[in-house]
Amino acid sequence: MAGNLESPEARQSALREVRRMLERQQYLAQLAQQQDPQHRALVEQLAARQEATALSMLLSRLHAADIADILEGLPLAERKRVWDVVRDERGGAVLVEAAEAVRGWLVDAMQADELDAVLQQLDADDILWIADGLPRASLEKRLAQFSSSEQQWLASAMAFDEDSVGNLMTHEVTVAAPAQTVAELVARLQADGTLPPQTDAIYVVDSRNVLQGRIALEKLLLVNAGTPLAEVLSADVVALRPEESAQEAVNAFERYDLVSAPVVNHRRQLLGRVTVEAVMEWMHESSHEDLLGSAGLAGEEDLYAPVRESARNRAYWLAVNLCTAFIASRVIGFFETTIEQLVALATLMPIVASIGGNTGNQTTALVIRALAIDQVRNDNLGVVYRKEMAVALLNGVALGCVVALFALVLYHDAQLALTIGLAMLICLFFAAIVGVSVPLLLKRFDRDPALGSSTLVTAFTDSLGFFVFLGLATLLLV
Amino acid sequence: MAGNLESPEARQSALREVRRMLERQQYLAQLAQQQDPQHRALVEQLAARQEATALSMLLSRLHAADIADILEGLPLAERKRVWDVVRDERGGAVLVEAAEAVRGWLVDAMQADELDAVLQQLDADDILWIADGLPRASLEKRLAQFSSSEQQWLASAMAFDEDSVGNLMTHEVTVAAPAQTVAELVARLQADGTLPPQTDAIYVVDSRNVLQGRIALEKLLLVNAGTPLAEVLSADVVALRPEESAQEAVNAFERYDLVSAPVVNHRRQLLGRVTVEAVMEWMHESSHEDLLGSAGLAGEEDLYAPVRESARNRAYWLAVNLCTAFIASRVIGFFETTIEQLVALATLMPIVASIGGNTGNQTTALVIRALAIDQVRNDNLGVVYRKEMAVALLNGVALGCVVALFALVLYHDAQLALTIGLAMLICLFFAAIVGVSVPLLLKRFDRDPALGSSTLVTAFTDSLGFFVFLGLATLLLV
Repeated sequence: MAGNLESPEARQSALREVRRMLERQQYLAQLAQQQDPQHRALVEQLAARQEATALSMLLSRLHAADIADILEGLPLAERKRVWDVVRDERGGAVLVEAAEAVRGWLVDAMQADELDAVLQQLDADDILWIADGLPRASLEKRLAQFSSSEQQWLASAMAFDEDSVGNLMTHEVTVAAPAQTVAELVARLQADGTLPPQTDAIYVVDSRNVLQGRIALEKLLLVNAGTPLAEVLSADVVALRPEESAQEAVNAFERYDLVSAPVVNHRRQLLGRVTVEAVMEWMHESSHEDLLGSAGLAGEEDLYAPVRESARNRAYWLAVNLCTAFIASRVIGFFETTIEQLVALATLMPIVASIGGNTGNQTTALVIRALAIDQVRNDNLGVVYRKEMAVALLNGVALGCVVALFALVLYHDAQLALTIGLAMLICLFFAAIVGVSVPLLLKRFDRDPALGSSTLVTAFTDSLGFFVFLGLATLLLV
Repeated sequence: MAGNLESPEARQSALREVRRMLERQQYLAQLAQQQDPQHRALVEQLAARQEATALSMLLSRLHAADIADILEGLPLAERKRVWDVVRDERGGAVLVEAAEAVRGWLVDAMQADELDAVLQQLDADDILWIADGLPRASLEKRLAQFSSSEQQWLASAMAFDEDSVGNLMTHEVTVAAPAQTVAELVARLQADGTLPPQTDAIYVVDSRNVLQGRIALEKLLLVNAGTPLAEVLSADVVALRPEESAQEAVNAFERYDLVSAPVVNHRRQLLGRVTVEAVMEWMHESSHEDLLGSAGLAGEEDLYAPVRESARNRAYWLAVNLCTAFIASRVIGFFETTIEQLVALATLMPIVASIGGNTGNQTTALVIRALAIDQVRNDNLGVVYRKEMAVALLNGVALGCVVALFALVLYHDAQLALTIGLAMLICLFFAAIVGVSVPLLLKRFDRDPALGSSTLVTAFTDSLGFFVFLGLATLLLV
């Protein structure tokens, strides 16, 4: 492996080294405490200087993304000490690479002037990427320092939604005119000396900045130097619109195996470029958000976040869950007299609710996936509902028999067994309908179906399971 | 937008057009049924030929990935008809782009000789990508047709795990010798005329195929043509090992913003290359697998899969769930005499279990995410446990008070209220411990923590909630 820390082992050993260093310093600090007051200041000063030097030597060997990872893995006090060492030189790059929750903590941990200095290290694209998490005053101060064209570009890009193509794009685009020859373009590129990261193509635009086509970098190597660009460009370009959702950009990158794609307005004027790096970063963050969101967390959470902050992050969905649990409890309360007569009902009822919840959530997961890849449409909704109901009936008969047998063996009561078997069947059938409907409804109301669906489906199937089973029991048994 | 169908609207309108065409043909087929037997054959033949022509014209305008999408969105009978139209010319490319479940269906829908013909259209990289889903006989037949060097490469690549770097890699790598000059290399590239997709760099290897470094494509444009490659190469290359997990490749691509990365063996000999396309495809599939798996589905499921197949896909986790529900039910059964004396317990007990399950799953989601980005290690496990327990205690006090109030208002029984409040607190505390431990244990036993964690955590918190609440009630109330 090269100098980079791409393996988890290498990263963990760097992390261990950093921690060992921090512990050694802690020990020196304790030592300093035992000295008489005159010496203490000197020892402390020496220790601090030694730490900073050793740490910055170790960290200078690492990629900013690795440092961001190390910071995320450190408790808050130690994180601050490491951050103070890297801040002045590479703080900007580390801030860009850090996970959202950690970035927020780092921003909060800085004085206003320290933050201003760090933001100085960042260009317009980086500022666009982290703008959402910055205090308004610092952001505006930094924005004012950009050139007026950059300011204009930033203002238009920041106007787009956080999860839109406009917010993913970079303004670093290499363009050329169609009348230029390959040799002229190459000469200009050589004069510039470098290309923006992940440049796989040069975009050809006319005098009004309208996109005419793209020329892959390799083409510049392979074709005759005297050819005009107009003759080598490929006009069939997958171009994105800034108002499209980031998910659509992901789909286009996956579908057409892109490395970068131009962003154009409705007049096909070139606004910027989206790179596969930004697309992957967005995919990564949104898959984590989906995972956390579906489990009922309001946002990304720092592993070392203060307890109170973490508790707040979880409170919203717990409150929702509390309400739905109260409702389910009231459904049971409605049948208290029935339960009083046959306490076995209380024992068996969670089975119906639990299996109902699970089948409903299986259906919901399939629908969420199908929605993500545009496979559910009005004209095949009927197919989806019919199929899920059929699967539920099949599973309902099978599971109903097993549960009925379980009840029969335990309570030797054929009628009770029949009741719970029938309740399972009915409950699974409705769970399937709910499982399809909930994500569709969330989508219709422009909510992310990956986030609330599971809680809502479970809430419904819980109450439904109790109601169907206890209701049937009241009708058939008592 | 260019000719490609990158917007969902464009794709859906193409899909609608295909379906309209299929319906028209259905109508013609019905018409043919009404003809006398002599004419019928003729009308049917004409209709079929017209359909095939019109369909193939429409489909020829589309990217293989779009056709794969359209196939996924069609019911089985219509899917087969469209597939028959594209199969002979572009079946291979469509097969590569199709989702796993749909690909499986398409493979099953073909005769052995049809499948052989389709596999003819694919090169070694494509075969590697879909090998897992192919019948053994067809796969071996196709493998025998490759050159012996390709066969050797395929055999070594297929030996690696499905979710490993070895299985993601392509053998299309452009290499050069360090003694060559830039001009010589460019001349050779021009003679070849084309580069493999997503080539962002040429790899420089010595005579024993040991990787010396990489030269970015742009560098070939920018440096002096007479320079030897040894002087322009960058030796600091992020190289992957074939036995590394695909997730580590994803991390490296995200961390270092790669477009492609070389794969080397332990002697640093170049084996192949991983492109960002393959990495994104894997990310996409594994995020869907995680979503479906965490909801209790055994594998990807075709929206139009036969009911029986779908039911089977869901049976495994439902069976697990059935067992855990039986256990929870037996826990309640243990306290039946207590419930008989105070039926309110039956009404309130699902609240404790439900909230316990939700807090446990919040913790689990955080730990799964932290595991995915290597943030949980032995040396900070203590921190994670302590923090989650602290958050649980804070939430436990808050939610315990609310639930106790709820019970007090409903049943005017202070002791009952105290009991349920205390049960909530204890249950949340243990739910946090379980929520951290379950994904850690799954990981330790080399299972994907994203798949079984939620079911196991819920199973535990259900039984725990019933046990703690009913147990406390037995001690304090009866």
